[in-house]
Amino acid sequence: MGIELKSIKSPADIKGHSLEELSALAGDIRVALLEKLSRKGGHVGPNLGFVEATIALHYVFNSPADKIIFDVSHQCYTHKILTGRVAAFIDPEHYNDASGYTNPDESTHDFFKVGHTSTSISLASGLAHARDLQDGHENIIAVIGDGSLSGGEAFEGLDNAGELGSNFIVVVNDNDMSIAENHGGIYDNLRSLRESGGTYPDNYFRTLGFDYLYVGAGNDIGALIKAFESVKDIDHPIVVHINTEKGHGYSAAVANKEKWHWESPFDVATATVFADEVKAPSYADITARLLLDEMVADPRIVAVNAATPGLMGFTPERRMQAGRRFIDVGIAEEQAAGMSSGLAKGGMRPFWGVCSTFVQRAYDQISQDIAINNTPVVIGVINAGFRGLTDVTHLCWFDIPLLSNIPDIVMLAPASAAEYVAMAKWALQQTDYPVVIRIPAIVSDIDIPVSDDYNDLNTFRQISSGSKVAILAVGLMLTPAMKAAEILRSQGMEPTVINPRFVSGIDAEMLSALEADHQAVVTVEDGILDGGFGQKIAAFYSDRPMLVKCLGLHKKFLDRYNPDTLAAECKLTPEGIVDTVNTMWR
Amino acid sequence: MGIELKSIKSPADIKGHSLEELSALAGDIRVALLEKLSRKGGHVGPNLGFVEATIALHYVFNSPADKIIFDVSHQCYTHKILTGRVAAFIDPEHYNDASGYTNPDESTHDFFKVGHTSTSISLASGLAHARDLQDGHENIIAVIGDGSLSGGEAFEGLDNAGELGSNFIVVVNDNDMSIAENHGGIYDNLRSLRESGGTYPDNYFRTLGFDYLYVGAGNDIGALIKAFESVKDIDHPIVVHINTEKGHGYSAAVANKEKWHWESPFDVATATVFADEVKAPSYADITARLLLDEMVADPRIVAVNAATPGLMGFTPERRMQAGRRFIDVGIAEEQAAGMSSGLAKGGMRPFWGVCSTFVQRAYDQISQDIAINNTPVVIGVINAGFRGLTDVTHLCWFDIPLLSNIPDIVMLAPASAAEYVAMAKWALQQTDYPVVIRIPAIVSDIDIPVSDDYNDLNTFRQISSGSKVAILAVGLMLTPAMKAAEILRSQGMEPTVINPRFVSGIDAEMLSALEADHQAVVTVEDGILDGGFGQKIAAFYSDRPMLVKCLGLHKKFLDRYNPDTLAAECKLTPEGIVDTVNTMWR
Repeated sequence: MGIELKSIKSPADIKGHSLEELSALAGDIRVALLEKLSRKGGHVGPNLGFVEATIALHYVFNSPADKIIFDVSHQCYTHKILTGRVAAFIDPEHYNDASGYTNPDESTHDFFKVGHTSTSISLASGLAHARDLQDGHENIIAVIGDGSLSGGEAFEGLDNAGELGSNFIVVVNDNDMSIAENHGGIYDNLRSLRESGGTYPDNYFRTLGFDYLYVGAGNDIGALIKAFESVKDIDHPIVVHINTEKGHGYSAAVANKEKWHWESPFDVATATVFADEVKAPSYADITARLLLDEMVADPRIVAVNAATPGLMGFTPERRMQAGRRFIDVGIAEEQAAGMSSGLAKGGMRPFWGVCSTFVQRAYDQISQDIAINNTPVVIGVINAGFRGLTDVTHLCWFDIPLLSNIPDIVMLAPASAAEYVAMAKWALQQTDYPVVIRIPAIVSDIDIPVSDDYNDLNTFRQISSGSKVAILAVGLMLTPAMKAAEILRSQGMEPTVINPRFVSGIDAEMLSALEADHQAVVTVEDGILDGGFGQKIAAFYSDRPMLVKCLGLHKKFLDRYNPDTLAAECKLTPEGIVDTVNTMWR
Repeated sequence: MGIELKSIKSPADIKGHSLEELSALAGDIRVALLEKLSRKGGHVGPNLGFVEATIALHYVFNSPADKIIFDVSHQCYTHKILTGRVAAFIDPEHYNDASGYTNPDESTHDFFKVGHTSTSISLASGLAHARDLQDGHENIIAVIGDGSLSGGEAFEGLDNAGELGSNFIVVVNDNDMSIAENHGGIYDNLRSLRESGGTYPDNYFRTLGFDYLYVGAGNDIGALIKAFESVKDIDHPIVVHINTEKGHGYSAAVANKEKWHWESPFDVATATVFADEVKAPSYADITARLLLDEMVADPRIVAVNAATPGLMGFTPERRMQAGRRFIDVGIAEEQAAGMSSGLAKGGMRPFWGVCSTFVQRAYDQISQDIAINNTPVVIGVINAGFRGLTDVTHLCWFDIPLLSNIPDIVMLAPASAAEYVAMAKWALQQTDYPVVIRIPAIVSDIDIPVSDDYNDLNTFRQISSGSKVAILAVGLMLTPAMKAAEILRSQGMEPTVINPRFVSGIDAEMLSALEADHQAVVTVEDGILDGGFGQKIAAFYSDRPMLVKCLGLHKKFLDRYNPDTLAAECKLTPEGIVDTVNTMWR
């Protein structure tokens, strides 16, 4: 009797079934995944490639007694289906019940909320040490994609776990791809291992203390079950290296693996992505055009990226166009930072584009390799603010406290696309400072005067001059601030509106001058208040009569929030700013 | 004719000399190093082991056209001697002219200020890319110790550089030691390579794309010159793996490599360390005793460390005593954080002790692996403040902005040893929060009431109750604050003194209550003001009449500063606090 997808409650429901029934289940899961992904968008390629391996893992191991830790969770959808969350994949009304990442709040089969790469082995090694210290005997299994192996934490985890004298299983899901193509010497080694059926003499995993098993047929449930059964309850660390196909079973995703790593909604039959049809202006596109233009004009310009070229607009065609002057280091933000510092020291002008949520992976390198050495690296912090990514593991609100408080870093927040371009050009031409530019997730249609020159550090700019109240709004927040000022003018007030431009310092002269005819200042930022820009303003006025109110995000983790709701709650809207001003005057 | 040590101006002065003359020079350098180290303290073992290799490097390569990048710089003293800075090693009056780390301000032969480990390959890879993009042909040489290889950035650097199709030379200085013994699977591989004369079939460096050359006689100038000559101007990446002896030529340092990694002043003839004779109470000792006691009482307690066991008082004897419940992960802070989260999830109670300057290497892991997962890891941030390490690469003032602004982290600042012990015990017994405890560099003799229970988050404690002015002093700063209050009382004032205890949140109730009979608040912290504790207080009162003045460190990098001078400049002294209070009232 076959396995009915919709009645799967737990992994027990797939045990004891025949290979044919498991294969049929894999087919049903793939159809369900495509149906949901085509409606909601999500990680298409990684999940399609890992259907069979997930079935085999749950067939062989006894989750949650045996613990499976997924890296970055881009391949966890089938795991969710098999562990009580099938409704979230087959019932559109329940699509939102499951997040795109593993989540212990959803199921006892999930152990960590994970969304950044390269963490699974470290996390699992802790579970293994805990098991050993409590004389437990369960299997600890870390699942990691080949792309994640280039991250330093994955190496540190392997290196440490290689010393465990006890059960530890790392499943390396090798589909020969990161989001884009892989970068790093290790990928030649993985290729040699694949091509030799696992017998190549230099074996990365063995050099770190692991035993090793290769499974070429990574989408063959029978071969995978056999492999997992052979390592179950093993008494030492082993890597099971399986060769899967990214996008397996969906020809469009197999044919263009980078495009289909993550996709927005699409038509399954024709593989037409709906969003492809209309394209709003994006900072990714602006960044790539800007850098390619600058490269023509200036042979020193180099674009640097850590495995997310699309975020800075570098499509495969544009990467080809840039040639050696686009360097993708793989998922390795520490290397991106350190190497950029070396590039700058060597006379080049690197622009490293990195998502706000990932820049935090290289704090020490930005502080030590770049800031202390004062190398003129330009860091474009992409998707900054709350309008971009909304998963708890991908929040982009922490970059101001993180980076603006490092000495000698100049941190800029452009309020419009034109200002961004001007700041980036200036940053690439000067050689005095490391510069961080906070690039918003969306392009505002705001029209403001833009300066070409930012050498006069920490000088704010008045957008409109008034009295009583001044509104200082950072970056994208200048848009609602200017709308708030219009409303206030219609109410008979004449607020001053200021574009600070710099978030790493304050314009003491302008702030002092405001005291002549202003009694209140409102700061507005799309980052957390704690440690942020507004608190610097509050501290400046703290022993003076000026009243200050700081608007921004509160220090808490949110998961899959609605950006508009959040903006309203935090008063980061024209109405919220107007309310705040009015409250200060009542 | 021999080489006169004191007349060496540049590497040109050693070229063309015979092996005998170079060996004699090595002997002279070793005598000079021991003389200076015995008077000033410093990195004894690593420098003594790398004398011959440095001579050989400068004999073969043409620095600074050829660029040598030292990892962590613990082995750079001979390099400094050979590159125009010999006076700093033979003339006591000039001992302070050279820092303990490479520094481009000192010499064109130094390319980066480096003090954190595992960065050399990343930095050098940037120089190599810059050379290639400018069609240069110089040799780029990264020098890295075996201990530094366990850090993620070193892996990311090797992995990326392994793809360079051009000259790149990594000298692995393998003395089979980190500060303490090495930890990680990679060290078995290095041992196998050493024992097989470099022929062991699984070769870590080859798996990342490097060519490989082994030199067993790592303290033999002739063998090293031959090896370096054979790789000079090579057209692809190669690792030259040399086996050196840590402490070479000084028997005490060879016999006890961990003790002599870094030593304070000592008598060369008897190897008697002067500071060993008197021991002030230290937080390292308090921490180790506390954890060993707790381990007896509670089988869940585990001590975690990343290659600096001495900082948490875990001598070799105490490590033995703790057995499997002391886990040293090697230089791998990301792994320490991720593994600790896994340990906590697995039911253990990990205490990870980490120096303030190194905790910043794991920001992303603390945020993602720990805070988002709310795993009850205890992180002891060691040496926090400005009283400990004074080199620019080892400043310990940034942890409050860095960690206190991560949601769901409870960050505590003990003001006395007794309060530290109480906080640590509480942190280890509760399971609701990740807790960071900010451990000062020195133990204060302050006597304050101490609570056993910190469940009531963000509750400040009044040490003395007064009126008009309240002084909120964080951690070690409570000591000068209490002395300032005494002085103020002698001047007829009655200040309120508050021990905030928590730096990750504010006690809104107490702060509001102060408004009844206080007009001014002074905050005092031994961290930078930007993004720190005081700014949270300033922001709280920003739209209220209370005057607030924040005392703390300014956002700038300082190198080898005098802590007392800095304290006076920043008014972090009893007199400075008194001045501040008086200024607010004048």
